[in-house]
Amino acid sequence: MVPFATIAVIGLGLIGSSIARAVRASLPGVALRGFDASDDVRARAAGLDLIDVVAGTAAEAVSGADLVILCVPVGAMASAAHAIAGSLAPGAVVSDVGSSKAGVAASLREALPGATIIPAHPVAGTENSGPEAGFATLFRGRWCILTPDEDADAAAVQRLSDFWSALGAKVELMDAPHHDLVLAVTSHLPHLIAFTIVGTASDLERVTESEVIKYSAGGFRDFTRIAASNPVMWRDIFLANKGAVLQMLQRFSEDLFHLQRAIRHDDGDTLFDLFTRTREIRRSVIEQGQDVAKADFGRHPEEEAGAEAGTRR
Amino acid sequence: MVPFATIAVIGLGLIGSSIARAVRASLPGVALRGFDASDDVRARAAGLDLIDVVAGTAAEAVSGADLVILCVPVGAMASAAHAIAGSLAPGAVVSDVGSSKAGVAASLREALPGATIIPAHPVAGTENSGPEAGFATLFRGRWCILTPDEDADAAAVQRLSDFWSALGAKVELMDAPHHDLVLAVTSHLPHLIAFTIVGTASDLERVTESEVIKYSAGGFRDFTRIAASNPVMWRDIFLANKGAVLQMLQRFSEDLFHLQRAIRHDDGDTLFDLFTRTREIRRSVIEQGQDVAKADFGRHPEEEAGAEAGTRR
Repeated sequence: MVPFATIAVIGLGLIGSSIARAVRASLPGVALRGFDASDDVRARAAGLDLIDVVAGTAAEAVSGADLVILCVPVGAMASAAHAIAGSLAPGAVVSDVGSSKAGVAASLREALPGATIIPAHPVAGTENSGPEAGFATLFRGRWCILTPDEDADAAAVQRLSDFWSALGAKVELMDAPHHDLVLAVTSHLPHLIAFTIVGTASDLERVTESEVIKYSAGGFRDFTRIAASNPVMWRDIFLANKGAVLQMLQRFSEDLFHLQRAIRHDDGDTLFDLFTRTREIRRSVIEQGQDVAKADFGRHPEEEAGAEAGTRR
Repeated sequence: MVPFATIAVIGLGLIGSSIARAVRASLPGVALRGFDASDDVRARAAGLDLIDVVAGTAAEAVSGADLVILCVPVGAMASAAHAIAGSLAPGAVVSDVGSSKAGVAASLREALPGATIIPAHPVAGTENSGPEAGFATLFRGRWCILTPDEDADAAAVQRLSDFWSALGAKVELMDAPHHDLVLAVTSHLPHLIAFTIVGTASDLERVTESEVIKYSAGGFRDFTRIAASNPVMWRDIFLANKGAVLQMLQRFSEDLFHLQRAIRHDDGDTLFDLFTRTREIRRSVIEQGQDVAKADFGRHPEEEAGAEAGTRR
């Protein structure tokens, strides 16, 4: 039932190291090989004993692997693919974890002609980076979206789907452009907005950065978490998914101006109607298991009675 | 050392009921009286045994109290103040918990001429509402900002400060207009943006609401929490703090257009520089105890090793 015998993970940051840990936990017979372009990260990964073999080059890491997963920023996918091009085992499945798919798929196809390429995106993560930040349960209950080409090998898609299921993920198939549009709104736009507002808040003249930090429990602190995500990874995502991100930004700006106008003209009904509607969305997110039900993400460990009673509104 | 002998809480939602619970927990000798304009909320509060006396009117609730705290939406402060105007005990301190202060202070002064008014704002809360949602530790380690007038009674300010300290809050004094500017950026703007993006996401034609919810773990789900906050409370805040909110919105929009332009022109350096800077702000928020240090707000209860190691980036 184990879909792959030897897995090579290229890039040993949060996602790559979480995959390694999850494989160890859920697929104990599988051989794990890995590589990271950073000497420091390779040494730390070796110290953490995440994988069986930390190779000195990407080419060496993929040798003999029947599944190769590229876990590098999307802007580095092309060069990572070129680095392994001559060393893939016959029949190896090549996948990735990038948050934008159409561009990455094109890069992989160009660098690896004839290879079996099944792009994937596990919709999971935290604001932390590096091999220490990963953990085995990161993908549990989260969605992993596969974006195979129309002519992709169905057996390979099934094996990759089985792999992600084994790690606890729920698997969905989607075409790459639609994936990029969906993620632009559920992930890229929220990140862009969080980066922006944290920047705005720290650039004010009449409110000091220290005040912003001090009173961040009013809502701002939530945005700082997302805005603490990996800068290289996110720079690459916005550039790679430019079209969809700009499209969603346009919609967001229109809606923001609409609310701005409502505030200016004391139109409380427009505000109230929207705020009532958005409350329902939160309920659905929780009902579908995509967030914890506890108040404030369960950030109040001291809270007792309130945690249970807090669901009534 | 108990600063007040009898406290009346007007409005028994998340904040009012949390104050009642915190008083019971931290100031056990104090008599608690309360009122809520909703028959249903009064009945639920009585059922929860939050306070000694649930009065039938606001006037009855404040009789004999030496501290009265108005815990109603800022748009309802004026009418709540008028309702108690004839019934305040001599020397009673009147305070509130509103998230905008200049307008509320003016309303209270107008409705309660000659009363000792010390406006306050505990910067704490969750997305839940109602008397069931409160808990005694809500204010612990959070800031409570007092915005007394320049000619306010110093002894009353000290007593109110002692009260909030007894509930576990850290107290700061500020003038009301500056408070309103600071909170516009640390609380009101983040909420407005969260409400907006959740609305935007649920209004798209090419991405369904069900897709948005399904893949919300990419970042969007965080915004749904804030956008689930009390609609009446937030409508009132935006209208009451209109000037500062519109000012901050202008800054935010400028900064967002700046990033939008960087994306359009493939200016990765501008993105990278900002994303590196915003990461530092998160670090400060955690260092100053205004958020939990755990990855993803500690939302992964299964996570073990990662929780500790995750702080390295």
